[in-house]
Amino acid sequence: MQNRQIILAKLPQGKLTLDCFQTREAPMPLPGPEEVLLRTLYVPLDAASRAWMQGVTYRSGLQAGDVMAATALAEVVESRSPLLAAGDLVLAETGWQTFAVVPAAGALKQSGIVPHTHLLSVYGVPGLTAYFGLLECGRPEAGETVVVSAAAGAVGMFAGQIARLRGCRTVGIAGGGAKTALLTDRLGFDAAIDYKKENLHDALRRSCPNGIDVLFDNVGGDILAASLPHMAKHGRIVCCGAVSQYDTASPPAAPAGIPGLLIVNSLTMRGFLLADFLHRQEQALAALAAWVTEEKLAIIEDLITGFELLPAALIGLLAGENIGKRIVQVARRAA
Amino acid sequence: MQNRQIILAKLPQGKLTLDCFQTREAPMPLPGPEEVLLRTLYVPLDAASRAWMQGVTYRSGLQAGDVMAATALAEVVESRSPLLAAGDLVLAETGWQTFAVVPAAGALKQSGIVPHTHLLSVYGVPGLTAYFGLLECGRPEAGETVVVSAAAGAVGMFAGQIARLRGCRTVGIAGGGAKTALLTDRLGFDAAIDYKKENLHDALRRSCPNGIDVLFDNVGGDILAASLPHMAKHGRIVCCGAVSQYDTASPPAAPAGIPGLLIVNSLTMRGFLLADFLHRQEQALAALAAWVTEEKLAIIEDLITGFELLPAALIGLLAGENIGKRIVQVARRAA
Repeated sequence: MQNRQIILAKLPQGKLTLDCFQTREAPMPLPGPEEVLLRTLYVPLDAASRAWMQGVTYRSGLQAGDVMAATALAEVVESRSPLLAAGDLVLAETGWQTFAVVPAAGALKQSGIVPHTHLLSVYGVPGLTAYFGLLECGRPEAGETVVVSAAAGAVGMFAGQIARLRGCRTVGIAGGGAKTALLTDRLGFDAAIDYKKENLHDALRRSCPNGIDVLFDNVGGDILAASLPHMAKHGRIVCCGAVSQYDTASPPAAPAGIPGLLIVNSLTMRGFLLADFLHRQEQALAALAAWVTEEKLAIIEDLITGFELLPAALIGLLAGENIGKRIVQVARRAA
Repeated sequence: MQNRQIILAKLPQGKLTLDCFQTREAPMPLPGPEEVLLRTLYVPLDAASRAWMQGVTYRSGLQAGDVMAATALAEVVESRSPLLAAGDLVLAETGWQTFAVVPAAGALKQSGIVPHTHLLSVYGVPGLTAYFGLLECGRPEAGETVVVSAAAGAVGMFAGQIARLRGCRTVGIAGGGAKTALLTDRLGFDAAIDYKKENLHDALRRSCPNGIDVLFDNVGGDILAASLPHMAKHGRIVCCGAVSQYDTASPPAAPAGIPGLLIVNSLTMRGFLLADFLHRQEQALAALAAWVTEEKLAIIEDLITGFELLPAALIGLLAGENIGKRIVQVARRAA
């Protein structure tokens, strides 16, 4: 049996394109002592992985020739460590390949929760990021107005729903009628703004008559800039992502009004990484599980099947074609 | 006796110039019931008053024809209210005029502390702004590195000294050798950067080898932009002022790297106004007074005498010619 890998054949100039990737066969990797051989099951896609191609972020930058990086849900095929056994489900840095060898200590054993994909959405990076970003950085109070950008995306859909569960008025910004309909019809947003169709200033003024208390921003650029003047006194801007900046060689200008509007309206902008809060993940997972059990939290996943579709799925994600958490299924679980 | 007023004859186009102002004689104002007649003693100058000419900030914008706005230290000449008596020292919205009538309820009685100018520096807006901005918004810990921009200015000099008193390493950014010498020789800064002479990136790298934990920023624009990449993980940026943005029709571009660098380094930017904290001013005044009594806090004032020098003094302040708090003495106290 062979391993299959997708490598980043070249760094993108401007928008990411299919010819930046190359699929190749490689020999099946063999685990050494304290290592495990993994079969990749599900690869979650994240716009941030485009930023890794721009250079050093919170991880070292990707280089041409690297196997495309990813943390995936995988199954242990063979273990040479007492920490894990064949059949265990783990989260590990497999990258975009059908099999991977990793140190056993670096593979996080997962529960067998069904569907497994929930480990990559509500109980994974998106759910935890939304939970800590909104509650710890945004600190919304009941009755406040919370605006979420990329609200139909993986993190945004949870951020908006958690804000609603905390008693906030929620307004989602997304691109296109299918997404805005989802926001109000299934995710309980009080209002939705289609940034592709509406004038953002008019729409924000209409849907946030008392201003924005918390902006949960996944986008940066023009949407952040347009929202700034609508922030209420003492408002908080949670800088969760900057998807407008990733898939381009020339990111949009930084928002004017910084620091001026921050000062006159006593605003706080806070950037964060999920890593800042991981030591408290049990608390978040318990809260998320309770909401899921009580059917208060909808989980939207955009599942694509087929290893070879990874490049197109990532490119499509960067173009905003996904609704909810996009995950590529690479293999079925054997165990 | 006549009153003398300086009016904003026209709004500036680009840099503020002397011909924007006009001095005129006006009839002596007469206090009505519950009003007081004030003799203006000391007018503190503040770069923010240039921003008032740009439009609505935290106060309504200035219009051509208005008496130039200012809160000044004044003496009650005649009172028609039981709240105040002739001879009382007050802080009030006199504007740039030698006499003013204001509602007695709007004039804040001051102690007779000597020199009176300290009521406009260490015990006034600059001292309180530095205290709350640094400690509440910046939250520096002992041993951390605090960088202050416009460090030889009215707020900056206190922010840097308070940071040192809290056990921080302090680095001041200022323009020109006289200011940087003051920072290290008299104000106890560990290092000073002359932004007019040195490359900011090199200087920040050299003087902040472990990065900037707290940036107390009075300037915005290029200095904020240059400092951003040097922020340490979990750093805090206190947005206190944006003096680079005030005296111009074309403010410098907003800092690139927002929100990107905020996210990857988990940074917080917080804007504030002194008004946010005024309910706690007693605590701050007590702390400041203790430091002054113990001779731990140097107070630098730049006193100019003569009502007619107000326009030139403000224009000079905007050009950065002051060291410490610039105050114009308009009259001597009669009482």
